[in-house]
Amino acid sequence: MNRRAFSARLLGAAAASALCRPQLRAQSQLRVDRKRINDRLSALSEFGKNPQGGVSRVAYSEADRQGREYAIGLMRAAGLEVTVDAAGNILGRRAGSDPKLPSLLIGSHIDSVPEGGNYDGNVGSMGAIEVAQVLSDNKVMTRHPLEVIIFQNEEGGLIGSRAIDGELTEKELDLVSRSGKTIREGIKFIGGDPAKLSSARRKRGDIAAYLELHIEQGGILDTEKINIGIVEGIVGINWWDVTIEGFANHAGTTPMNQRHDALLAAAKFIQAVNRIVTAVPGRQVGTVGRIQSLPGAPNVIPGKVVLSLELRDLDAGKIAQLYQKIFAESQQIAESSGTKFDFKEINVNIPAPTDERIRRFIAESAGALGLSTKTMPSGAGHDAQDMARLGPVGMIFIPSVGGISHSPREFSRPEDIENGANVLLQALLKLDRE
Amino acid sequence: MNRRAFSARLLGAAAASALCRPQLRAQSQLRVDRKRINDRLSALSEFGKNPQGGVSRVAYSEADRQGREYAIGLMRAAGLEVTVDAAGNILGRRAGSDPKLPSLLIGSHIDSVPEGGNYDGNVGSMGAIEVAQVLSDNKVMTRHPLEVIIFQNEEGGLIGSRAIDGELTEKELDLVSRSGKTIREGIKFIGGDPAKLSSARRKRGDIAAYLELHIEQGGILDTEKINIGIVEGIVGINWWDVTIEGFANHAGTTPMNQRHDALLAAAKFIQAVNRIVTAVPGRQVGTVGRIQSLPGAPNVIPGKVVLSLELRDLDAGKIAQLYQKIFAESQQIAESSGTKFDFKEINVNIPAPTDERIRRFIAESAGALGLSTKTMPSGAGHDAQDMARLGPVGMIFIPSVGGISHSPREFSRPEDIENGANVLLQALLKLDRE
Repeated sequence: MNRRAFSARLLGAAAASALCRPQLRAQSQLRVDRKRINDRLSALSEFGKNPQGGVSRVAYSEADRQGREYAIGLMRAAGLEVTVDAAGNILGRRAGSDPKLPSLLIGSHIDSVPEGGNYDGNVGSMGAIEVAQVLSDNKVMTRHPLEVIIFQNEEGGLIGSRAIDGELTEKELDLVSRSGKTIREGIKFIGGDPAKLSSARRKRGDIAAYLELHIEQGGILDTEKINIGIVEGIVGINWWDVTIEGFANHAGTTPMNQRHDALLAAAKFIQAVNRIVTAVPGRQVGTVGRIQSLPGAPNVIPGKVVLSLELRDLDAGKIAQLYQKIFAESQQIAESSGTKFDFKEINVNIPAPTDERIRRFIAESAGALGLSTKTMPSGAGHDAQDMARLGPVGMIFIPSVGGISHSPREFSRPEDIENGANVLLQALLKLDRE
Repeated sequence: MNRRAFSARLLGAAAASALCRPQLRAQSQLRVDRKRINDRLSALSEFGKNPQGGVSRVAYSEADRQGREYAIGLMRAAGLEVTVDAAGNILGRRAGSDPKLPSLLIGSHIDSVPEGGNYDGNVGSMGAIEVAQVLSDNKVMTRHPLEVIIFQNEEGGLIGSRAIDGELTEKELDLVSRSGKTIREGIKFIGGDPAKLSSARRKRGDIAAYLELHIEQGGILDTEKINIGIVEGIVGINWWDVTIEGFANHAGTTPMNQRHDALLAAAKFIQAVNRIVTAVPGRQVGTVGRIQSLPGAPNVIPGKVVLSLELRDLDAGKIAQLYQKIFAESQQIAESSGTKFDFKEINVNIPAPTDERIRRFIAESAGALGLSTKTMPSGAGHDAQDMARLGPVGMIFIPSVGGISHSPREFSRPEDIENGANVLLQALLKLDRE
C-alpha cells in the first residue's frame, strides 16, 4: 500500500466512525468553563475565610454549613437531584439512559483543616459540579446514572466515606471533632441522621466507579512541570507510638558513661528511620513528627521519650519490611544505650490501588487534550480509598504550586484547574461508554 | 642515727606536742553522735513527707516553715544564738575567743524539690547543727565565731545565698516559686523582710571560710566504694535554647529528598553533642534534656524544633571550647539538611573552685579518721558557689547509694552520714586553728 492509499483508508475509517457515533464525536469536544469553575472556587473561599488568607472551614462549623448550602445551590442549578444521606454526605443525582446500570460517582469534599487553603477538596468538588453542569448544558445523557458526591468531614478522618463503606463505628460518633461538636452532633448539624447511619451504606457493586479530581498536595508535578498526575493508588499508612525507656538522672552529677539517656537513643532512632527508608529505591516515606521527652527539663537526663513513627507506601509488604528493619535497629540501639524500646500500633490504613482501566482512560483523556501526565502514588489519604472497597476508583491530580498544602499558601493555577476538570469530564465519559 | 634513736626522737616530739597543745589533742578526739544525727534526719523527714516516700518540702510551703521551726529548735539547743536575716536565711551564732576574727560558716539547706528525698541539703544542715552541738557539749571555744547557716530556697535557684552575695535582683522577687508564692511573699512567710534585703548582704572578707557537707547526688563514690569526696569546685553551667528551623510539610506527599525536617536535624545535633562532649578526656558533661517539635503531629514533617543544650565543667574555658565545636557542627548539619540553627544563651553559672587549703584540711581530717577520699567536681550547683564570692569555701561529699537524687529513692547510709559530719567537724577545727 502506498502512502496515499493508506491515508485514504484512514480518512474513510474516521469518517465512518463519526457517522456511526455522532454523540461520541460531540462528547470528545465537550470542555469545562475555566472562568465559571474558578469563579465558584473564589466564591466558596468566602465561607470561613481567614483574615490572613485561606479558610478555616472545619467540618460541622457554621462556615461548613454555609459552604454546603452554596454547593447544594450549584448542584441544583446543574440539574442534579440533591439529597443529604444519613451520614451527612451531599448527593446530586442525574439519571442515565440505562436504568439497570449502577451509578458513576464523581466528587470530593469542601471541609478544610484549621487555617487550610482554598484548593484541597474544593477543586474536586467544584470540578465535579462543573462536569455535571457541562453535561446538563449540552443535554448529554450518560448511560449510567451520575452522582456528584460531596463527602462530609474528610479532614477529620474520612468520616463521610467511611460511613458509606460501613467502617465508621458507633463509638467514633462520640469523639469530639475540631468544630467542638461530637461527630454525632455534627452529622445532625449538617442535616444527616446518625440514628439511621446504616441507610447511607453501600455495598461492593453498588457503584460502577468513583473518580476524584484533587490537588497533588506535594511538589512533584510542579517541580517536573507536568500537567496531570495519574494516581496509581493511595498509599497505606501505618502509625506507631514508640516509647523509649531510659533512666532520668541529674545532668550535673551523672557522668556521660553512666547515663541511660532516652533522648540520645531517640536521636539515633530518628536517624535510623531516615536511613532505612531512604536506603531502598521507591517512593516510600517515613516520618517522626511528634516527640516528647520526660521529665523535659534542661538539667535532667531524659528518662523517657515517646515519639511517633509513620510509614507510607503503596505496597503494604514494603511497609512491613521497612518496619522489620527499623524494629531490628531499635533493638541494637536499646542494647548499646541501656534503654528499652516499645512499639504500639496506633493506626493502619491499608493501601488502596486505583483501577488499571480508569488510569488508562485518564491517560487517554489527558493525551487527547495535549496534556503531559505522570503516574504517581497519592501520599495523602482521600475518600477514594474508602470508595475503592465498593468498586473501581481513579484519581486525577493537578499541580500544587511549591508543593504546599494545608496552608493559606496552598495554590493551584486556574489553567491547571481547568485541565484537571476537562480530564475528569472526558475520563468519566469514556468510563460511561465502556 | 639508728632506728631506736630515731623512734625515741619521734616519741619525744609527740609527747612534747601533746604537752604544749592539750586542747588540740582533745579536739582531734571529738566525734559526732551517729544516732543523734540520723534520728534528727528521720524527724526532719516528717515535715512534708509523701505517702510514697521522700518529701515535698518546697521553699515557702507550710512544710518548709515547720522544718525550719524544727531546725531552729535544734540550733537553740546546741547553744546557738538564732536569727533570721532579711532574706530568710536562718543563722545560728556562737562566739569565738578572738573577737577580731571573721566568722567560720557551716551549713546547707532543708528545702526540697517536689517529690524529693530526705538527704539532699538535710545531711549538711543536720551535720552542721551536730557539729555545733558537739562543740557545745565539750565546751570547746573556737578562735573564730561560728555560724551555722540554713540557706532558704536552695532548690529554687540558690535564692538565700544569692541574697547574701548580692546577686538576687529586685525583679526576681516577683517570680512565682514552686510553692505558688512569689519569692517576695515567700521571704515574708518565713520571717524575712524583702524590703531590707540589703541588710542580709555580706562582702568579700566578711567570712573566714564556708564549709558544707552534702550528699554527692551522683554515683561515683558509691560505685568506687570511697567514703569521702573532696570537692575541687562547683562546675560552671551554661544553658542555651537551640531553635532549628526547617519547613513543615505533609508527611505523605513530600518525598524524602525534598524535606527540610527540623527533627531529623535535631537528631543529628543531639548525637553530635554527645560525641563532642565525650571525645575529650575529663569529667565535662553535655545534656539535651528538653525538646519540642512543631507542629508536633505524626503526619506532618517537623518545621521547627526547640531544644535545650546544657554544658558543665569546672573550667569555663573548656565549656567555651566544647560550645565552639558544637556550634561549628550545627552549621554543617544546617547546611546538609537545609535547616537553620539559632542559639540563645539562657543562663550562665561560672565555675566556683574550692580553696586548696580547705581541701587539704578535709583530706587530712578524713585520713586521720581512716576514711578513703577522692577529689572530684560537684556537677550540681550549691549555695557554696555563692559563698565562694565572699571567701574560701570547701565541700565534703558522702556517697549517694545508686547515685540517685531528687527522688524518694535518694539514700545515704547512717555510717556515711556520721563519717561526713566527723570530717566536717575536724576540718572546721583545723580551719579555726590556722
